[in-house]
Amino acid sequence: MKELQSIERLVDSFSKLPGIGHKSAQKMAYSVLEMSDENVEEFSIALKEVKNKVHKCPICGSLTEEEICEICSDSKRDHTRIIVVSYPKDIFPFEKLGTYNGVYHVLGGTLSAINGVGVEDLSINDLLERIKKDNVQEIILATNPTIDGETTALYIAKLLENKNINVSRLAYGLPMGGHLEYADTLTLSKALEGRKKI
Amino acid sequence: MKELQSIERLVDSFSKLPGIGHKSAQKMAYSVLEMSDENVEEFSIALKEVKNKVHKCPICGSLTEEEICEICSDSKRDHTRIIVVSYPKDIFPFEKLGTYNGVYHVLGGTLSAINGVGVEDLSINDLLERIKKDNVQEIILATNPTIDGETTALYIAKLLENKNINVSRLAYGLPMGGHLEYADTLTLSKALEGRKKI
Repeated sequence: MKELQSIERLVDSFSKLPGIGHKSAQKMAYSVLEMSDENVEEFSIALKEVKNKVHKCPICGSLTEEEICEICSDSKRDHTRIIVVSYPKDIFPFEKLGTYNGVYHVLGGTLSAINGVGVEDLSINDLLERIKKDNVQEIILATNPTIDGETTALYIAKLLENKNINVSRLAYGLPMGGHLEYADTLTLSKALEGRKKI
Repeated sequence: MKELQSIERLVDSFSKLPGIGHKSAQKMAYSVLEMSDENVEEFSIALKEVKNKVHKCPICGSLTEEEICEICSDSKRDHTRIIVVSYPKDIFPFEKLGTYNGVYHVLGGTLSAINGVGVEDLSINDLLERIKKDNVQEIILATNPTIDGETTALYIAKLLENKNINVSRLAYGLPMGGHLEYADTLTLSKALEGRKKI
């Protein structure tokens, strides 16, 4: 006796999700059998809708259901100030702050020799054009605090040298509310390096 | 800026899966955007098909796409011998052995005071009727080795007392390939209790 075909097909689909192995996919497939018809129908439609409705904003590269994203089309925001992030979801933490009034640029990833991501795979040229066109004054590089994120930030910073633009990188240091004893050496050395007079 | 509506709806659906929190659901929803159109279409169809095609076998309660499941409709199997399990997926490990030629009965859960699962929620009456109708000679109780599984097995064993049926329970003991030092006290005491002369 083998797994039923329709269950197997669903297990295959769940297995394609990030971090989901065969066992978890199986558990999920069985749980679908327990869901109400409405919930399964909604789930099935939601999958297709995400794929059909959501696309990249042609200006900043973040995701939108409109022609141009909410932030890029907001004339009350400061379009001469750009936070550069790797992925669309990286915009949310900044928006949650509620204090940033500039716009964003989504690179679509980070430079990575190991994963074979080169300059041409990221929307770096789009960023340079945007800077020229919108007379951008400030670029805040907010790629992840990883080797690849750092490489990407430094690469872009290099490109913007001598262009009379205020280029900065998010600060490294101890996370608020953390404890010194739990800080890893890299974070601690960055915190020491970036120490400020009080 | 909030999460896009269509993404939010998909996150909601993923969140309904067992063991998936909001963060994981979000990660999954974003990964769907990266999937090929074909894969998303397949996923969407697979969800609905599982729900539409799969139903319970009216005889044993396992899952099937046919009218009656493969095992119950197999006349070469011994229908007077039944392994009783809690869930359809519990049948697979026995079928993998390749040595069992009897049939199965799926209870649909285990008795549980905490989760409010009572006798009427399990297909225990169906089992009794099946035993009478098919002149069943042997019942092997294979509910999980947990308190609830044990309670369920004991309850059924009690019902079958004095009915001239060979009722047994899977053996408890040390798992093969394990190490004594890692055995929990409950397993070890069961292994000691069930010791066999050699």
